[in-house]
Amino acid sequence: MPLKIKNVDYFDGEKLILKGNIYIKDGIIVGLGKKEKEQPFPTDKEIDGENCLALPGLVNCHTHAGMVYTRGFADDKPLMTWLEDYIWPLEAKLTPDDIYWGSLLAIAEMLASGTTTFTDMYFAMDRVGDAVLESGIRAVLTWGLIGVQENAIANLDKTVDFATNWRGKGNGRITTMLAPHAPYTCPPEFMEEVLERAKRHNLPIHTHLAETKDEIKQIEKDYGKTPIKWALDVGIFEHRTVAAHCVHLKDEDINILAENNVGVAYNPQSNMKLASGIAPITKLIEKGVKVGFGTDGPGSNNSLDMFAELKMGSLLQKVAGENSQNLPAEQVVKMSTSVGAEILGLGSEIGNLQKGKKADIILLNLDKPHLTPLFDPLAHVVYSCRGSDVQTTIVDGKILYDRGEFYTLDVEKIKWEVRERTRHLTK
Amino acid sequence: MPLKIKNVDYFDGEKLILKGNIYIKDGIIVGLGKKEKEQPFPTDKEIDGENCLALPGLVNCHTHAGMVYTRGFADDKPLMTWLEDYIWPLEAKLTPDDIYWGSLLAIAEMLASGTTTFTDMYFAMDRVGDAVLESGIRAVLTWGLIGVQENAIANLDKTVDFATNWRGKGNGRITTMLAPHAPYTCPPEFMEEVLERAKRHNLPIHTHLAETKDEIKQIEKDYGKTPIKWALDVGIFEHRTVAAHCVHLKDEDINILAENNVGVAYNPQSNMKLASGIAPITKLIEKGVKVGFGTDGPGSNNSLDMFAELKMGSLLQKVAGENSQNLPAEQVVKMSTSVGAEILGLGSEIGNLQKGKKADIILLNLDKPHLTPLFDPLAHVVYSCRGSDVQTTIVDGKILYDRGEFYTLDVEKIKWEVRERTRHLTK
Repeated sequence: MPLKIKNVDYFDGEKLILKGNIYIKDGIIVGLGKKEKEQPFPTDKEIDGENCLALPGLVNCHTHAGMVYTRGFADDKPLMTWLEDYIWPLEAKLTPDDIYWGSLLAIAEMLASGTTTFTDMYFAMDRVGDAVLESGIRAVLTWGLIGVQENAIANLDKTVDFATNWRGKGNGRITTMLAPHAPYTCPPEFMEEVLERAKRHNLPIHTHLAETKDEIKQIEKDYGKTPIKWALDVGIFEHRTVAAHCVHLKDEDINILAENNVGVAYNPQSNMKLASGIAPITKLIEKGVKVGFGTDGPGSNNSLDMFAELKMGSLLQKVAGENSQNLPAEQVVKMSTSVGAEILGLGSEIGNLQKGKKADIILLNLDKPHLTPLFDPLAHVVYSCRGSDVQTTIVDGKILYDRGEFYTLDVEKIKWEVRERTRHLTK
Repeated sequence: MPLKIKNVDYFDGEKLILKGNIYIKDGIIVGLGKKEKEQPFPTDKEIDGENCLALPGLVNCHTHAGMVYTRGFADDKPLMTWLEDYIWPLEAKLTPDDIYWGSLLAIAEMLASGTTTFTDMYFAMDRVGDAVLESGIRAVLTWGLIGVQENAIANLDKTVDFATNWRGKGNGRITTMLAPHAPYTCPPEFMEEVLERAKRHNLPIHTHLAETKDEIKQIEKDYGKTPIKWALDVGIFEHRTVAAHCVHLKDEDINILAENNVGVAYNPQSNMKLASGIAPITKLIEKGVKVGFGTDGPGSNNSLDMFAELKMGSLLQKVAGENSQNLPAEQVVKMSTSVGAEILGLGSEIGNLQKGKKADIILLNLDKPHLTPLFDPLAHVVYSCRGSDVQTTIVDGKILYDRGEFYTLDVEKIKWEVRERTRHLTK
């Protein structure tokens, strides 16, 4: 269904274009700019971009969508109480169907707040895949692996099957990675097995690293090194890796991440809410590390709104570094679009509004009191917009959300299912 | 116009009531609760509270509404560059009419995001007063005073006239304070004049204190003491004072604030964005200091959405104090309602949903993907809600905003005026 967005201001990933047109065909941006006034082909639909800013869709580099069931379930608790007494017992009861419905709910929230690609680490990932296929969103799916549990290798092989079978589905909207959970749950011999399969099947690795001080202590005690050095030594950095958190880093850790081209997912709200710490993002970027944004799961945030993440993430770097110039608006927008896409291995497909790229596009309606006046649209994106300012979300050339309407999801049914299932899970 | 909110979950300031009714007459809450099923009088209008949570309206303890003209004007700059090269030159051009229209815009933003009372420190405050009267919002108006400028005493007397003439207007919706700007702009001899008038006319004091490290250094250099000790010594703490920021405090400063019952306005987003620092709010509260939330001006935030402020403020205290239990949700809700009202001297009138209190009430629509499932409504208020979840805003018993409609403001005209005026101001 050919589509035209007309008369729209847009940020193409490098520069701001005023009053241009964007043409989409077969899911691809086939033409755009101020000069593209001639209709290159008949379009089924025109979207009037008046008062809107178009951006590449936001890329969430780390979340656990199925954790919607734990949103607001146990806040303001010490981390281990939260995990051991609340989160893990509830998660142990989740069925694949629960995860399917929970993921649909999370996807609805993400589409309505401008996320077009999310990176998910959870379990029953084939059911998450079903939710991704039905909804039309783009996703990087990773099946979390605990190396210390029984049948760890059998599980690993099962997730390799998932990853190889599911990648490319949905017109390429689904890609996959292997996801060993963390250094404290995956021993080195297990990591070697993961790495062997990652290389054999050309699957990148997604993992948690250096999230809390407790983890640093534990890995120091068990292995006499930092989690980053541990990951280097087990060999996974030979392979493309996306590491979530990276909160507690020594200078040498930062050098290791930079030298090995490890992508980092920055999750400021989760790190703040769980009191994990403040990731040295400004320093990581100075050293050349590529950093994208993640929301982490809705249990520890408690939101999947990337706009809140962007503002919080930028402001946190400013105050922590005592420098109001840290993580300026344009850099934040790039981190949450093109840089995020790049660390997920999708840099050639999405992350920019350029001819030939896949049409993952969001429109923000800027005609609102809280976005008036308008000097620099990118400053508004980071410092003034909320997820609710998203008017339209397009993934792979298809409109999935527009002015409160979901085109592929029955959101009333989804909310009902999640509420009913929550009742069962917590009774 | 008698009004009934029926079948609504609400937080009355102390506890959560499910499926109750709230009756409002002549601007006052005249009955509420589960038992209040009998209609005490005919109502002109019923609001169905299904799927909603009613809260006391949010109280913004510190802002500069007229600074909407500087929203997004000059972000990611060093503080002094921001002020000297951008903000002050633009502010110097502002006419009273500009401030009137800018304040109307800020009020529209505030009403739409659940703020029912704001504390404003700016100039041309009589025009801000006009905006408050027309809009129907509640406000504490304070005319900023620079003690080092020419005609400082004449200006002071002018603002005393403003404060005494305007307090009580709008059925008591307007109250006033005197607002010496800060220790570095108001010498002690000027502060003595302020204090004398504050006492004579029974006007509380609103000021900035201990916002930046530069201020700490400057006051140490000029007076050999901290800004808090300086304020104590000039005598203003003998009188009811609301101090904005209080970021850089010694233990002795905290004791001084507690012993003198000074109210503190916590502005986390502004303090983060300008890289001013992290206020020791958890410690202040432990010592008995009453702390409310403020957004600061839209030039340094760049938003007046209190919900963003609550989440950021809570999360910042957790990560800074390395304790996920810091500033838990219920405490944050109280700080932004009853405690805020109390430090502004309005504790007997607003801040709770109780019989006899003025009817400043907001309704949040919780029937949304990002607010599903629902365990603890107050956790959702702080960690998951956005200002855009406000469905209805009632001040002094009158509906001012409902589902995107402003009942007292021509928001299209206001946006147009602010845009036109911005063009003139920046050309």
